[in-house]
Amino acid sequence: MRTYLDCIPCFFDQALRAARMAKVSQKKQKEVLGRLAKEVPNLSLESSPPEIGRIVYRRVREITGKKDPLKELKNRSNRIALSFYPDLKKKVNFATDKLERAVKLAIAGNIIDFAKGNYLDFSKKDIEDVLKKDFGIFDYQKFKEALKNANQILYLADNAGEVVFDRILIEELIKLNKKIIYVVKDKPVINDALKEDAEFCGIDKIAKVVSNGSDVPGTILKFCSKQFLDFYKKTDLIISKGQGNFEGLSDEKIPIFFLFRVKCRVVANDVGSKVGDIILKSNL
Amino acid sequence: MRTYLDCIPCFFDQALRAARMAKVSQKKQKEVLGRLAKEVPNLSLESSPPEIGRIVYRRVREITGKKDPLKELKNRSNRIALSFYPDLKKKVNFATDKLERAVKLAIAGNIIDFAKGNYLDFSKKDIEDVLKKDFGIFDYQKFKEALKNANQILYLADNAGEVVFDRILIEELIKLNKKIIYVVKDKPVINDALKEDAEFCGIDKIAKVVSNGSDVPGTILKFCSKQFLDFYKKTDLIISKGQGNFEGLSDEKIPIFFLFRVKCRVVANDVGSKVGDIILKSNL
Repeated sequence: MRTYLDCIPCFFDQALRAARMAKVSQKKQKEVLGRLAKEVPNLSLESSPPEIGRIVYRRVREITGKKDPLKELKNRSNRIALSFYPDLKKKVNFATDKLERAVKLAIAGNIIDFAKGNYLDFSKKDIEDVLKKDFGIFDYQKFKEALKNANQILYLADNAGEVVFDRILIEELIKLNKKIIYVVKDKPVINDALKEDAEFCGIDKIAKVVSNGSDVPGTILKFCSKQFLDFYKKTDLIISKGQGNFEGLSDEKIPIFFLFRVKCRVVANDVGSKVGDIILKSNL
Repeated sequence: MRTYLDCIPCFFDQALRAARMAKVSQKKQKEVLGRLAKEVPNLSLESSPPEIGRIVYRRVREITGKKDPLKELKNRSNRIALSFYPDLKKKVNFATDKLERAVKLAIAGNIIDFAKGNYLDFSKKDIEDVLKKDFGIFDYQKFKEALKNANQILYLADNAGEVVFDRILIEELIKLNKKIIYVVKDKPVINDALKEDAEFCGIDKIAKVVSNGSDVPGTILKFCSKQFLDFYKKTDLIISKGQGNFEGLSDEKIPIFFLFRVKCRVVANDVGSKVGDIILKSNL
């Protein structure tokens, strides 16, 4: 997905929020915005939003001097989400269509997003609300068809905490004899899941965990490692979590299923849905 | 009120919206954002938001080449609001406290605001909704007290269309033997009311209409004309409409009553209310 002009005010908003989360002075926060402003004339709208997001969050890290300002919050998300795990398992086990329920729960986990700032925390009620929601886009039949022919699945993670919800879906996929490679970011960016988060949430016990080699808040192939690209080319199917991964991969021509909650008007317009919608979208 | 860092993303948002309303190409719209970006490192947070807004909208006019891009929309607002006039009069005449009802209607008119972008149009339902609302801040007793001792009132207008709602309140004030000077902007900025709007809506028949001499989307005394400042210094009481005028005058130490609807989180925090609240606030 390309970047829209509407993304520019949003990048300033994200940069400000990130600077505040890094707990630096107001002067430093203003410096972050001033530094971002210098990039504006050179921003290419042909780039996808996470490609620009990568620059934004790099500048924030450079100026604030904080390499991983959300580390504590990520740990907290992981802990809260893990405390939900037994309850989430019950929700799947009591469902008529366990796979569908697990897909929905994986998307419910996508409410944990610091970049868009509305969900610094999440509760059981948030999860219940998502479970009650109808999908905005629901390519479930296509997903089940694609699963039939897939042996190995590349699962692109989004945020810390959300990882526990991914585990729920991954456990259902394993029951269907799928082999899962769980892909995390290489370096800290916002609250995106890293290897340590995947391990803390127990993913390494059930799947191979690899990094994509980048610090992009999404997946941009040109910034990914050779190891990741090898997996990417050979995999049968990709499950991509979150809006950032969608923004980076929506134009790719291999079988990807995007699972996310729509967090802004620009993406809502792009996919033809509404802000807040939950999406299971095939790119084919 | 000072400018907060949160205002910076919002200025980009406003500039983009203004450029779009000027119906220029995407390239020109991006140029507007690039030009605004150049101002960011020099922006003083000690300035009030309308002082920066003045720069923002000047840049938009320079780059788009459109002096008054919202002229048609302003005319339309005036016409729609005028068509409501008989109904608004009835609402006042049937009220137990006619002055209070007129104050509330004057604030209801403040839903017409292109800068914040959510209300390009307004309906009778919007007005009914405001009439049903409780005030977030309601210094009505103080307002009535202040009115008792006031002979001449300076009434600072906000937007075109809204002028008709101001007329409703002004007509009630005239019944209380007050003399009204109605103050509009000197040059086009967003959809702020100009002399032509005041005249179209019939204010010139019941009050003296003067310009404040500036093109600020609010009232910043240092940019106002000598004529306005003379009125300002001599007046008994000021009624100030809209968030922009509040932002510019909230720190002044003369009797001002601010009537507005809270349109952003920054102002909500500043006055201690919520976005969407309707406010009648004394600055003393």
